[in-house]
Amino acid sequence: MNEGEFIAALRSLASAPAARGLADDAAVLELGGETLVVTQDTIVAGIHVRADEDPADVAWKLVAVNLSDLAAKGAAPLGLMVSHMLGDGDARFIEGLGDVLGELGVPLLGGDTTGSGGERRSWSCIALGRATHCPVPDRRGARAGDAIYVTGTLGLAMLGFDEGERNTGSTADLAYRRPWPLLTEGIALAPLVTAMMDVSDGLLLDCQRMAQVSRVRFHLDSDSFPVADPARADACVRWGDDYQLLFTARPNERLPIPATRIGLVEENGPEALLIDGRAPEGDRLGYLHG
Amino acid sequence: MNEGEFIAALRSLASAPAARGLADDAAVLELGGETLVVTQDTIVAGIHVRADEDPADVAWKLVAVNLSDLAAKGAAPLGLMVSHMLGDGDARFIEGLGDVLGELGVPLLGGDTTGSGGERRSWSCIALGRATHCPVPDRRGARAGDAIYVTGTLGLAMLGFDEGERNTGSTADLAYRRPWPLLTEGIALAPLVTAMMDVSDGLLLDCQRMAQVSRVRFHLDSDSFPVADPARADACVRWGDDYQLLFTARPNERLPIPATRIGLVEENGPEALLIDGRAPEGDRLGYLHG
Repeated sequence: MNEGEFIAALRSLASAPAARGLADDAAVLELGGETLVVTQDTIVAGIHVRADEDPADVAWKLVAVNLSDLAAKGAAPLGLMVSHMLGDGDARFIEGLGDVLGELGVPLLGGDTTGSGGERRSWSCIALGRATHCPVPDRRGARAGDAIYVTGTLGLAMLGFDEGERNTGSTADLAYRRPWPLLTEGIALAPLVTAMMDVSDGLLLDCQRMAQVSRVRFHLDSDSFPVADPARADACVRWGDDYQLLFTARPNERLPIPATRIGLVEENGPEALLIDGRAPEGDRLGYLHG
Repeated sequence: MNEGEFIAALRSLASAPAARGLADDAAVLELGGETLVVTQDTIVAGIHVRADEDPADVAWKLVAVNLSDLAAKGAAPLGLMVSHMLGDGDARFIEGLGDVLGELGVPLLGGDTTGSGGERRSWSCIALGRATHCPVPDRRGARAGDAIYVTGTLGLAMLGFDEGERNTGSTADLAYRRPWPLLTEGIALAPLVTAMMDVSDGLLLDCQRMAQVSRVRFHLDSDSFPVADPARADACVRWGDDYQLLFTARPNERLPIPATRIGLVEENGPEALLIDGRAPEGDRLGYLHG
């Protein structure tokens, strides 16, 4: 079973509307007149972070990627729970966790530890948020005629990862080690987007995913991609780890925050994704696990 | 850093009341007039389950241990999210997950997959529940003069684990492979207990933990322990994995469900736990990770 097959099998078990067909970044649950948004993401050493990554940076990224999923739903964080596999550098993990909770002002609600003993460590996190706008933005809402937007610059995390020296404190280094979840931006965008998600696995792959679950085609204009390094433009839109917001909106919509228009949503076609009129080249559009 | 030191450091970061000082099985959050109960637990291959455990049983246990934490808080399940590390037997995992969700009638709200590649696999789960009684039972509420109770029989899971043949379908085999979360019992007990938790790491260790966070002493009567095998009585109260409910209540309280009275809560003393008037023997009271 590969990841796609597993998710398909899981989807057949997740029939509650709150599960959003497992096609979204979060579960959305009505409770007592409020709407709860819940996300879960796991980081595995050697896959999502380097095997020898500073545990302080692992803790930061763990929290940031979960809050980024809340951001994509326009949710205001209520708190976090962290599952930590004990091992080397636990004091550094605590330090990084303290940093990210303090900087972002999000309460830690719970924690769970497990022994490791294996070669790979993994860390898991849950973020709980309160929806600020209903309906809560969904990946599945892109409609033909919508414009496609992405915030910020893509490829910075890749450049940070590729820097020879670590911890330089450069913009690229920080983009890789200390990604910033776009919570304010997500809340500002929630009332006007037709679909929204965060770009974790690369722009092209995430565009394809949003198009597929929305049953439309995304037609992108490669000249418009806001890449950090034009000489490596293709890698910038496939590498991932940027945690920018990808969204669609009516083409005449005025945006409350800066974002780059990168294409147009079209009617469903044989391809879910076109770039400059052609199907994208290469086997891997972005980062796939498994 | 060992588990205790790590949790202590984590506790210093978790100052929100909803975190319950990380001294409880769950976070408890007010939202829109309802009270949300959230638990997270991780299962690691070779630690919580055998390295070659049937993935269907892993899925069952993953869900059951999380729902058991909800049971201990008297919460009615709203749904679950599962984080799965891809690997061998994924189809069996889906099968077991379908079984437990169906049998317990709990919706799957989300799922996340990660690649493995390492030797040890781990699986993580979040359970969300709605409190049926406020205040939500806490581990920290035991008071001197309370009686101490435990439901069911202890040591059955150990006997199941020790059976030479697997999948016999015996009571002990099912107790180990397919533990049943005591949701109905937890909801019935919630209004009258002074403290409650589930017994996951062994009765003695969990009694000590509840006494410590309640700042009292638990004085147990070993003759009263409801053990599955009197010849291995000591192992039965240390092995864990039983998912019975441990709780304290006023001594004259009428219980709505069957439970065994195993001791009395006393004023705080130099020892958090006494058995028949003496400190317990042996280094390991129960199952500790680390």
